Amino acid sequence: MVNIAVLGYGTVGSGVVEVINTNGKRINQRVGDEVYIKYVLDLRDFPGDPVQEKLVHDFEVIVNDPEIQIVVEVMGGIEPAYTFVKRSLLAGKSVATSNKALVAKHGAELLSIAKEKNINFLFEASVGGGIPIIRALNSSITADEIEEITGILNGTTNYMLTKMFYEGADYDEVLKEAQEKGYAERNPEADVEGYDACRKIAILSSLISGYQVDFEDIYTEGITKITKQDMMYAKAMGMTIKLLASSRREKEHLHAIVAPYLLPEEHPLYSVNGVFNAVFVHGNVLGDAMFYGSGAGKLPTASAVVADVVDEAKHLNKNVMTMWESEKVELFPIEETSKRFFVRISGDAEAMKPHLESKFGAIDVVKVEKLANEFGFVTGVMTEGEYSRNAAEFPGILHMLRIEE
Amino acid sequence: MVNIAVLGYGTVGSGVVEVINTNGKRINQRVGDEVYIKYVLDLRDFPGDPVQEKLVHDFEVIVNDPEIQIVVEVMGGIEPAYTFVKRSLLAGKSVATSNKALVAKHGAELLSIAKEKNINFLFEASVGGGIPIIRALNSSITADEIEEITGILNGTTNYMLTKMFYEGADYDEVLKEAQEKGYAERNPEADVEGYDACRKIAILSSLISGYQVDFEDIYTEGITKITKQDMMYAKAMGMTIKLLASSRREKEHLHAIVAPYLLPEEHPLYSVNGVFNAVFVHGNVLGDAMFYGSGAGKLPTASAVVADVVDEAKHLNKNVMTMWESEKVELFPIEETSKRFFVRISGDAEAMKPHLESKFGAIDVVKVEKLANEFGFVTGVMTEGEYSRNAAEFPGILHMLRIEE
Repeated sequence: MVNIAVLGYGTVGSGVVEVINTNGKRINQRVGDEVYIKYVLDLRDFPGDPVQEKLVHDFEVIVNDPEIQIVVEVMGGIEPAYTFVKRSLLAGKSVATSNKALVAKHGAELLSIAKEKNINFLFEASVGGGIPIIRALNSSITADEIEEITGILNGTTNYMLTKMFYEGADYDEVLKEAQEKGYAERNPEADVEGYDACRKIAILSSLISGYQVDFEDIYTEGITKITKQDMMYAKAMGMTIKLLASSRREKEHLHAIVAPYLLPEEHPLYSVNGVFNAVFVHGNVLGDAMFYGSGAGKLPTASAVVADVVDEAKHLNKNVMTMWESEKVELFPIEETSKRFFVRISGDAEAMKPHLESKFGAIDVVKVEKLANEFGFVTGVMTEGEYSRNAAEFPGILHMLRIEE
Repeated sequence: MVNIAVLGYGTVGSGVVEVINTNGKRINQRVGDEVYIKYVLDLRDFPGDPVQEKLVHDFEVIVNDPEIQIVVEVMGGIEPAYTFVKRSLLAGKSVATSNKALVAKHGAELLSIAKEKNINFLFEASVGGGIPIIRALNSSITADEIEEITGILNGTTNYMLTKMFYEGADYDEVLKEAQEKGYAERNPEADVEGYDACRKIAILSSLISGYQVDFEDIYTEGITKITKQDMMYAKAMGMTIKLLASSRREKEHLHAIVAPYLLPEEHPLYSVNGVFNAVFVHGNVLGDAMFYGSGAGKLPTASAVVADVVDEAKHLNKNVMTMWESEKVELFPIEETSKRFFVRISGDAEAMKPHLESKFGAIDVVKVEKLANEFGFVTGVMTEGEYSRNAAEFPGILHMLRIEE
């Protein structure tokens, strides 16, 4: 019997209990032993719920019970999650978590404790919900150098952008609807400003580089400035707008960014719609691959957490996770990264084109019939620094979007 | 040092050598030891190629060398691959293979030998080339009951159908072009008749059910009868046509099929174009997920083979692969499986609708302007048996396509 304790009986925690109850027979068959939930930690009581008999209010009961071999942390937030996870690992218990904030901040340290103790710290559910991207990077795509990883890592904003694209709705409208449907929080900042996607790409960046990438260092721009006019231009160009979180390796350098991008129809991420998430990976021998699925939700997230539990139960005394060092990797300054830019500007295209081309080089003009007194143009490939210097000379610029090739 | 031998220096074999040479440092880091190619088996000589010094012509050298811990079988075909793989496993050497014919036919037996010897028989590259679907089923989606797995598993036919859809080309035209580009063999039967996809879905079906699924038992229909007229109807309905290989579990039953399907725009497989492959998975708690990537090609396939080598090198004395029993699973007869059907029929829609509806129930008529003297209709959900019985009464039926919901 493998005894586990679940810290937190919220959405994901109750999902973990439900998944183990529903698929227990199959799970035990895969582990080759019985996975048994001995404790559930929560400050609350749940009278009438069968979980009540396993409920404890004091973490000491769990950490001091030598029978507990795996701890599932699904409380969220940094504290007390960090203290509980660290103490569990130091006590020789493997930990599975869905907590992206914890992993982004303390992943390197917690992984190194797990390695030292020859146990495991796994966090599949912290990025992309049910999408098995972390295990793919750790155990599947092991013959490659991962050169790029680009994801749609936030379901709330993808739902909103999908609505704006297909229904021509404006930002405020879709935010209100997303809030009514429960897809967006009353305070939607973490989603719409890109902070959630930023923590997730920080974790993926650390994994592919092997070094610590601090989320605070990643240039992050949300979707709050995306308008229905932007979507009209996107459509006119046969593209869509997605909030991408991306990390690219170039020799010793890494550049990471979270921002809304224009995406061409041929890109595998183009048709990832609604609350779905997807992660595009480019390996130097594998080429292009993509992983798609539910980025959030009680059961998909719990499915990923329980898959970690299965892995840990099969490797009780063997560390299987790739480490990343606590040493920080230097991110390439955004000013020096190159791409094409789409720019909306007030005025008349014919009159302004010569001046624009004198600064930006050859441009492609884009017009949307319904939008008078403005036009769009696409630049050639240039650095963000060059773009900014040139753009400063045109006060009529209304909005800029980066283009993903 | 982990010594390996590569059986076969063809496309995939030379890819394996190239991947290990290119990414050796990273691979060794992941294994925690040096992976060293000691032998390459081939009947031919390769004078001038650095591989020549590792070349052996006699399998006995490999199987009798106690230093060889992992054998990579990339020769293809049943014999002598089967004999070599079985003897390697019996000699205590783990095996990684890309050979779908071998795995579909002898997978259960080879897996059971590996389990008995506490070594591994892995075959990631046998399905979906570089797409890590087998490891995902084995190690990632372990908290779920997999209820459905549906894939675009053959790049040649997907390339052809994509061309037919986007360019309105006819079957013979695109086949000729695919042959000229080297995407299709001179004898294209294995691809266009669905035999290749059938072996791959047989492997996936065995994995998700845990029992032997014989590819001979799977209803298989290729793309040779798909015409540009079919594509015109598909477009008129907002759908496309894809060769799907699908396996669905229903309690103790499994139904598996390979056939061209009409696919709606919302389906994640809709936008999988060109030579790319993708596998859609539905788990009872995970929900929908999809894995996308290169289904063939020297380096993507080699990437998957070498990832198996890495896994085996990390688990030299630990069996990690889910078994499937050699006992056969009974497939649900195709006549009893239910779906909607799209039918093209000669004649006048208005005149024929009452008679059609008296047999098929309510139908939706589809017309394509350029196609006179015929029309299409979509039935409600019915079994294949019901459909066939009703269709027998209408000699004017030109073609039938199944609809994937």
